[in-house]
Amino acid sequence: MARRRRQSAARAENQGTDYTQLTHGFPRAEVFSTDQVEAIHGESLRVLEELGIRILNDEAREMLRAAGCEIRDDMMVHLPADLVEAEIARAPRRFTWHGATGFSVDVAPDTLIFGPGAGCPNATDLDRGRRPGTLADLVELLKIQEGFDILQKIGPMVEAQDVPVNTRHVELTRIQLENSRKIPFVFARGSGQTEQALEMIRIARGVDMETFRNTAYASTVVNTNSPRQIDVPMAQGIIDFARWGQVCVITPFCLAGAMAPITTAGALMLSHAEALAGIALSQIARPGAPVIYGAFSSNVDMKSGAPVFGTPEHIHANLGAGQLARRIGLPWRSGSGTASNAPDVQGAMETQAATWGAVLGGANLIYHAAGWLEGGLTISYEKLITDLEICQTIARAMEPVEATPEAIGFDAVAEVPPGGHFFAATQTMNRYATQFYEPLTSDWSNFGQWHDAGAVDTTKRAHALWKEALRTFTPPPMDVARKEELAAYAAARIAEGGAVVVD
Amino acid sequence: MARRRRQSAARAENQGTDYTQLTHGFPRAEVFSTDQVEAIHGESLRVLEELGIRILNDEAREMLRAAGCEIRDDMMVHLPADLVEAEIARAPRRFTWHGATGFSVDVAPDTLIFGPGAGCPNATDLDRGRRPGTLADLVELLKIQEGFDILQKIGPMVEAQDVPVNTRHVELTRIQLENSRKIPFVFARGSGQTEQALEMIRIARGVDMETFRNTAYASTVVNTNSPRQIDVPMAQGIIDFARWGQVCVITPFCLAGAMAPITTAGALMLSHAEALAGIALSQIARPGAPVIYGAFSSNVDMKSGAPVFGTPEHIHANLGAGQLARRIGLPWRSGSGTASNAPDVQGAMETQAATWGAVLGGANLIYHAAGWLEGGLTISYEKLITDLEICQTIARAMEPVEATPEAIGFDAVAEVPPGGHFFAATQTMNRYATQFYEPLTSDWSNFGQWHDAGAVDTTKRAHALWKEALRTFTPPPMDVARKEELAAYAAARIAEGGAVVVD
Repeated sequence: MARRRRQSAARAENQGTDYTQLTHGFPRAEVFSTDQVEAIHGESLRVLEELGIRILNDEAREMLRAAGCEIRDDMMVHLPADLVEAEIARAPRRFTWHGATGFSVDVAPDTLIFGPGAGCPNATDLDRGRRPGTLADLVELLKIQEGFDILQKIGPMVEAQDVPVNTRHVELTRIQLENSRKIPFVFARGSGQTEQALEMIRIARGVDMETFRNTAYASTVVNTNSPRQIDVPMAQGIIDFARWGQVCVITPFCLAGAMAPITTAGALMLSHAEALAGIALSQIARPGAPVIYGAFSSNVDMKSGAPVFGTPEHIHANLGAGQLARRIGLPWRSGSGTASNAPDVQGAMETQAATWGAVLGGANLIYHAAGWLEGGLTISYEKLITDLEICQTIARAMEPVEATPEAIGFDAVAEVPPGGHFFAATQTMNRYATQFYEPLTSDWSNFGQWHDAGAVDTTKRAHALWKEALRTFTPPPMDVARKEELAAYAAARIAEGGAVVVD
Repeated sequence: MARRRRQSAARAENQGTDYTQLTHGFPRAEVFSTDQVEAIHGESLRVLEELGIRILNDEAREMLRAAGCEIRDDMMVHLPADLVEAEIARAPRRFTWHGATGFSVDVAPDTLIFGPGAGCPNATDLDRGRRPGTLADLVELLKIQEGFDILQKIGPMVEAQDVPVNTRHVELTRIQLENSRKIPFVFARGSGQTEQALEMIRIARGVDMETFRNTAYASTVVNTNSPRQIDVPMAQGIIDFARWGQVCVITPFCLAGAMAPITTAGALMLSHAEALAGIALSQIARPGAPVIYGAFSSNVDMKSGAPVFGTPEHIHANLGAGQLARRIGLPWRSGSGTASNAPDVQGAMETQAATWGAVLGGANLIYHAAGWLEGGLTISYEKLITDLEICQTIARAMEPVEATPEAIGFDAVAEVPPGGHFFAATQTMNRYATQFYEPLTSDWSNFGQWHDAGAVDTTKRAHALWKEALRTFTPPPMDVARKEELAAYAAARIAEGGAVVVD
């Protein structure tokens, strides 16, 4: 990390930013005092101990019982506060996440990872409009994102609804490995699916089982069924990923006013309780298993009950969630997003506001940072690109600024007469090619030029950009033997019907 | 201030936010170490002392000479560092800015004021397209903004190009006073124009000359002619506004790579030097005169030389400028904006990024926070509205979050069974009407509803909103006698041909 940070400083004000490893550069903003954080943490523990959390998975309940929890009526698990504190203390504070050869990213208190919008049932683009997602859409989206290092994490940007659910995990894993160097995602939809998908990742990475089980290569997200419930596949996912040594991102989706109290503090208190229960379960399953504390809390539109994003309440939740994550010392995951139905100004505004909230909350992993529409029901090809502009802008703005005597530039000022210009100054000539950020989608021509060139708006420019990214896509190299082994494994699993989805 | 802050806390998480007095709620982000700030400040002083600044105004040069500066060839004024330090120390750290009766806003280290886009030669809206600005456009824009308290400062949102320049200041002042309670703007285009405009404001506020000269009621912006030059009317503006006790916002517009060094540190060093020279002049003209330290530094597109905004460099400049402002202890003014040619996604993205940079830089006054397009060449009626959504979102996000036991909500969590919902919980019912921010332009209906209602995009919704604001505009009350006096004074000035523009 230290080495990389130094490289980053050397690249300051240099167009050649390495986006693959980002370090936070803004101070963390806070909404709670230290006492208030303690109070919320304490009430979360009290919820787990006194009210309990309903865990529908038999194995999980049994493990928690054996660890010292009390099980009462209707699968309610009551977790003693000291047990929870002891278990979360076992989770690693930092780890390195490995992609294909040559690609890795550190997860640590001061690092930041962006992931694209994921889990969307629909896809949309300017050519083809909005439609149910297919495997072909997902392949396209994976190829497009691969050209942008600012996304270090990948995932199911759209649901491949044309693939049977019992083999979808095989296809999803295969196309992630074939089209990307980055950290892949596996749905926790039953132990059978998890095992097959993780085995594919192990094959692709070319490591033995022992190494795989002790190195972070994959991720899943476990969403609790707020309030106070974890269902069968989600609890199984926590257990399985812990045993496999893979990263479980335990993320209550606590929307204030709907599945959680209407207040920011209340929504976070519930979210925190559920995350702590999940993390405790993971550490009981395997002490030291890598987990990420998830908190994706926003609010709902009280008129319709629909989730909304990029609101002041979403920002508040991000700032508070960061404080709770730092209280327990674990890396944490947030979510960006928008409820907009179109890749328009609302979509751009809400997603950026949400992303700033997550960044200022010190999130270490921000999912849905690009492309999400309709609160996650649709992924937009064009919005994927325009949102990356914001991720890149923030990444560059987090880099150090030079303030050497040469940069402060007394000599440059002395060189230019009053009322003159610096276009040809020595300092400018030495630096102009790499000094400034070059945008992806922004058009900085003047109105006349822009108008005469067809008055193309940002979304249409983004359209051209994703097409270009698709055209220029080159698959990441993979050892031929591994590739064949992976194909054979995938074909065999599909031939035998994949694995059953547990729900 | 303290009283207002307490009110604000009581309004936390309450839809009824009072936007008229904002208090910073995010930590200041920094790009320089304390030593680096000292180094930049020191080099700025060295520029003023060793290289000098060219001041084209005879009176200003004479005042500076009399104060101890050395004048060399070609109107170059060399300001001794100790003189500059002594003069800037006289400027007030805080003051209250008064609008119409009942409207005032505190300028202090922790307060924030938003102003709309200003100075644009053109106006555009979806009905009428882009055209040269007129007085009628400006009246419309002033009426529209008056419905939104999130703008506390007003100004010449568009240039009334259909009004002769020698009487334009009379019309500009008159329509600001007739249509708004907020703090008006006066162009510094010669002492005659300044005197007439300020006299109109004095009449409208109903105060005697002594009171007027000792209370902040008006503002101007002085842009230096970077690098290292202050022209005749700008220097005169500094002197006149100081003598009148009105607020001079001294703002070098130092675009890195064009009128300033290409580095952030260098552009800010030059900007700082020019601002210090202007502030020193103001304090020599009248010790204790209210001034605002301006720093509107961004970069240019190195391909075209065009100013750009919302870039990582613009963010860096805002963070560094804030540090320099705090070094000298004065309130400071930044600028938001975009180079976009349309009120589209680029416009929304760049303006929001620029605004976050200014907010995180701790700016006390952010001009061009809403409506600017094309780097200030055009103001968009629709973008005015959509940008206000971001200002309001940030304002709400800066408010405190409740963390009382009731807000943390153990009882609310206890009330809802696992897997249930909080829509009908007691806490929800007590709070739902006012808990969440209600957006101006965001449409949170689902895709089907939105599509069936015509798939109206954000910009079109903003169009409807400004029309509604125009329809519902009510002029602020003004005492009849003052109104008549104001009208008579304006008519007399216009009849005699106004006052000559100095340039």
